[in-house]
Amino acid sequence: MPRLVMKFGGTSVADIAHIQRVARHVRRETEAGYEVAVVVSAMAGTTNQLVSWTREISPLHDAREYDAVVASGEQVTAGLLAMALQAIGVDARSWLGWQIPLRTDAAHGAARIAGIETDELIARLSRGQVAVVAGFQGIGPDNRIATLGRGGSDTSAVALAAAIGAERCDIYTDVDGVYTTDPRMVPEARRLDRLSHEEMLEMASLGAKVLHVRSVEMAMVHGVRTFVRSSLVDPDAPELKGANATVGTLICDEDEIMEKKFVTGIAYSLAEAQLSLRRVADKPGVAAAVFGPLAEANINVDMIVQNVSEDGTLTDLTFTVPTADYNRARLVIEGAREAVGFHVVQGSTDVAKVSVIGVGMRSHAGVAAECFAALAAENINIRAITTSEIKISVLIDAPHASLAVRTLHSLYGLDKD
Amino acid sequence: MPRLVMKFGGTSVADIAHIQRVARHVRRETEAGYEVAVVVSAMAGTTNQLVSWTREISPLHDAREYDAVVASGEQVTAGLLAMALQAIGVDARSWLGWQIPLRTDAAHGAARIAGIETDELIARLSRGQVAVVAGFQGIGPDNRIATLGRGGSDTSAVALAAAIGAERCDIYTDVDGVYTTDPRMVPEARRLDRLSHEEMLEMASLGAKVLHVRSVEMAMVHGVRTFVRSSLVDPDAPELKGANATVGTLICDEDEIMEKKFVTGIAYSLAEAQLSLRRVADKPGVAAAVFGPLAEANINVDMIVQNVSEDGTLTDLTFTVPTADYNRARLVIEGAREAVGFHVVQGSTDVAKVSVIGVGMRSHAGVAAECFAALAAENINIRAITTSEIKISVLIDAPHASLAVRTLHSLYGLDKD
Repeated sequence: MPRLVMKFGGTSVADIAHIQRVARHVRRETEAGYEVAVVVSAMAGTTNQLVSWTREISPLHDAREYDAVVASGEQVTAGLLAMALQAIGVDARSWLGWQIPLRTDAAHGAARIAGIETDELIARLSRGQVAVVAGFQGIGPDNRIATLGRGGSDTSAVALAAAIGAERCDIYTDVDGVYTTDPRMVPEARRLDRLSHEEMLEMASLGAKVLHVRSVEMAMVHGVRTFVRSSLVDPDAPELKGANATVGTLICDEDEIMEKKFVTGIAYSLAEAQLSLRRVADKPGVAAAVFGPLAEANINVDMIVQNVSEDGTLTDLTFTVPTADYNRARLVIEGAREAVGFHVVQGSTDVAKVSVIGVGMRSHAGVAAECFAALAAENINIRAITTSEIKISVLIDAPHASLAVRTLHSLYGLDKD
Repeated sequence: MPRLVMKFGGTSVADIAHIQRVARHVRRETEAGYEVAVVVSAMAGTTNQLVSWTREISPLHDAREYDAVVASGEQVTAGLLAMALQAIGVDARSWLGWQIPLRTDAAHGAARIAGIETDELIARLSRGQVAVVAGFQGIGPDNRIATLGRGGSDTSAVALAAAIGAERCDIYTDVDGVYTTDPRMVPEARRLDRLSHEEMLEMASLGAKVLHVRSVEMAMVHGVRTFVRSSLVDPDAPELKGANATVGTLICDEDEIMEKKFVTGIAYSLAEAQLSLRRVADKPGVAAAVFGPLAEANINVDMIVQNVSEDGTLTDLTFTVPTADYNRARLVIEGAREAVGFHVVQGSTDVAKVSVIGVGMRSHAGVAAECFAALAAENINIRAITTSEIKISVLIDAPHASLAVRTLHSLYGLDKD
């Protein structure tokens, strides 16, 4: 029988009524003929409470103890969901990370999955028993609980799907899929039926919060088909059953997507700030002198733009950092003034990054030019540009963000079916 | 170095401030030269919340899932206390039941301890690391979490003390020891310095809620010296340090008690109801016909009194059941009327059981006679009497309970030092 992994986040298991609804989602799939493993997060709010207790005791705490405390949240949900399944006649049992075992490396608090021993779990799946797996947790080489860090339950689900050879990994969330852009900003935004892993990776990196970057990376590497869908619908609706499920977004290999569009989505972020160093010496070692100290200060740099200078002597260097780190970044840069030798630092927190994403642009040269022309026609000034194979990002003034997103969304035909 | 087990219940670890105070209690003992293992309960309220969730899902649930859910409470406390100890410079780590491992039988929800593998734990204790053990939990033969049922953390602590050969097992609670009787009823009640295991067993069975019966039984069997003391005092008070600790009650083997009194305490219970079967045939099989159906209905019978009948034909049979089961017990008895052949059932929920406890009464014949005389002098009617080697229990009308307890407390000189 085909296997399915179903993952439910904290808001989907927020209380007993929600957990009972999740049980009905699971029963629907067992009745559709799947062997099912379910991965659950902690009930909404639980993890925050546990984390705040650990902080109250000490800001600097033993990550192994932190893991023992925080992993308890998923343990509770797994037990409760197994009970809820049994109560509606579905054979089920809970699995904690150490019971499977799901082995991790020794990096407590942000562990990486080293391997999953699936023999017993698969034997029970094939006897028709649903496996309810506590997400976010495994067991480290020290025989102690290790948690996977942010996005951990998504990562657990995708890794489990790869390990048991699941046909699909369904990620249930409070939205019904991935959209061409943020529907709160652009009412015409449409749900995408399919999206490649590479595109989802860019969308996730650029602010679409449906899936964590790490789990998308893992899905891409292991070729796991991931289906983003809503947990808020009636679980017993016949159109949701099994392989027929159509309401949602399938994230899959590019090969599975027949009709490729040039552009699949527009992402944006208001959480970055711009820093520009004016009249920097255009010589080897300058970039290292700038970005070395920032890395040491644990400040993530995103866009980096440097032009070839006209006369080979002085150039401008622009980059973005998280808005929260802006003031700290300025101080770090001022401290490196002598080593870098720039004239002046300019910056702004009032900027937006807007990105056009699509695997199709690889083979279509005009996408970027169309983008710049359309923004110019709306009188939107572009501060900086970066591109990758499947993405164009522009930095603009924040007040223009909404107009820019709507303009580009319409430009590439994303408003239409 | 001598070893010490310290146990803290739910109210002693109710929030982070309480957990930090517990950490200071522990540090005091490590500084006094002990190797320390701490056993903790869940934070007050947590277990009730978890249990109520399991009941909300289904009144009939899988005990293995119940255990996975409920055991998470002690897991959280163990991790937090280990952190709090580290934060004040005490090396510590948490131990979950499956990590030690503390092995149990397969009776999930009310498991019994089968054995504790202490090699690694002792090796770490001897390197000066405090072991913070999650109470109430172990691992069953099925490799799943098993909880020990009511009083579980006390039992964990005593079993651990036996397994690691601890000099003493300190039970921290919200009272400072075991009293000659309930101080709320008798202001003259005094804290006992020492008490034998047998006496504590009777006290615990009879309503003194300081220690659970099961843990006292285990302490008696394994000869574990148990010290009941307060967690609410200043942890750094020098008079509490190490072997010098005097404020509390030591429960130990009779041999350790030099000056034995005839009577050590007066216990009482208002939670029992009386049932009397009048004119029962005095023939073999009658007791079985009465108590068999009650046992099947899961009703605990406590006192049982049956006299030899005068003429060998008809007798009266009196027994007590928990007040909460009184109506159900009457129905069960009515159902057995034909098999038992009694004339009429009488009963009352307005009764009290008062008990005089002391190992000294073994060798002193007059204790019972003095008891009955003193109650008669106060015009208190005795409904029924049962005795054991170290206990006399009388069933009286509930309104006389307070007077009876005060009279007996004074009679045996328990008011005086």
